[in-house]
Amino acid sequence: MVGTTHPGNIGAAARAMHNMSFNRLVLVDPQCPVGEIAYARASGANSLLDSRETCPDLETAIAGCQFAIAASARRRSLTWPELEPRQMADKLIDLDDETEAAIVFGREHSGLTNEELRLCNFMVTIPTNPVFSSLNVAAAIQVLCYEVYRQSAEPRENPPIDSQDMPAASAEVEGYFEHLRRVLEGSGFLDAQQPGLIMQRLRRLYLRSELTRNEVNILRGILSAVETRRD
Amino acid sequence: MVGTTHPGNIGAAARAMHNMSFNRLVLVDPQCPVGEIAYARASGANSLLDSRETCPDLETAIAGCQFAIAASARRRSLTWPELEPRQMADKLIDLDDETEAAIVFGREHSGLTNEELRLCNFMVTIPTNPVFSSLNVAAAIQVLCYEVYRQSAEPRENPPIDSQDMPAASAEVEGYFEHLRRVLEGSGFLDAQQPGLIMQRLRRLYLRSELTRNEVNILRGILSAVETRRD
Repeated sequence: MVGTTHPGNIGAAARAMHNMSFNRLVLVDPQCPVGEIAYARASGANSLLDSRETCPDLETAIAGCQFAIAASARRRSLTWPELEPRQMADKLIDLDDETEAAIVFGREHSGLTNEELRLCNFMVTIPTNPVFSSLNVAAAIQVLCYEVYRQSAEPRENPPIDSQDMPAASAEVEGYFEHLRRVLEGSGFLDAQQPGLIMQRLRRLYLRSELTRNEVNILRGILSAVETRRD
Repeated sequence: MVGTTHPGNIGAAARAMHNMSFNRLVLVDPQCPVGEIAYARASGANSLLDSRETCPDLETAIAGCQFAIAASARRRSLTWPELEPRQMADKLIDLDDETEAAIVFGREHSGLTNEELRLCNFMVTIPTNPVFSSLNVAAAIQVLCYEVYRQSAEPRENPPIDSQDMPAASAEVEGYFEHLRRVLEGSGFLDAQQPGLIMQRLRRLYLRSELTRNEVNILRGILSAVETRRD
């Protein structure tokens, strides 16, 4: 939960998560204390509040995750690969046991920034009444956790991308983007002052691909070969 | 909502209902006022609170309904025809326009009595963590209204990755692979005699990404920049 301002929502989120067998709550830059109000609304889901983690920013929070999905209500200028709740649930359920994934929820009034969204592989939108589309954040958590819990009850067969290969962690993928930007600037393809939409489009492409560790190594190997040859 | 004791739950229920295009809220024997706290939690769904109806008992409340479904969390001594949320949604959607239906939610702490349940055609149970199964009543309303709204929406085509952008044709993607192979051989990263698994892995990565035309242009632009620089 990013930048939450109301402790009641944190408590209600803990309850909703525990109801659906989720157990790891990370608060990113929370704007309120987690005290009596939160515990009252958690209504017994104290273990989730007790074991909550707190991070200064989203990048830190999901650095160890191989897969992040941003819950987003509003239409954005930025287009990002979009999932329905059930598609999201299927994707999460298909991940192997070693993969860490996060569902990211934004601020009560303003959601996630575009910069935060860009850190995520996909965004998920809960279908709503178009004239009254803003769900309470804990209600959105309830719906998405319900979909995952509900879908995970159904046995599915879907082979992983490559059973020999592990999904790359967010920090590894960010390391690749940094390397890519450097090489593109060095080659004159990108103007360092005016990266424009190019880096954003490349981010979107690679994040939607859910890169594996092996693939990040290959892609960085290519960048290094190109750099070496140039020197 | 039967016997609700907390005005915040009434407000949160109104918001959840309005989010999912429900518009008729009936309070049965409410145990709290509908005032400032309820309106604050409704967060703009005032019309639902303003137009709420109040009844002394459930029998009166559903007297005009041809179909009533009781939301129930707990295992009961009384067995009653039970639906999953999606089955409930299907049943409600299949009703003709003349039929009035109700979804009935019980008290925060004790749910519905067996006598109330007997007034209903079916009961619906939201699947939950067996060790922490009690959902907040407004959260339960959110989940069930979501299922109805979700199911009633026409099956949607996957939204395009970028509405400004078209999927690339196979020949365009193959043209990119050919260009990529040439550049990788030129840079010494690939041995032309022994391309090994690298090209295969890169194909798999990009094919699974379902490249758009725009993305192919960017990726080829990068290759051209790298080639030019090398000459």
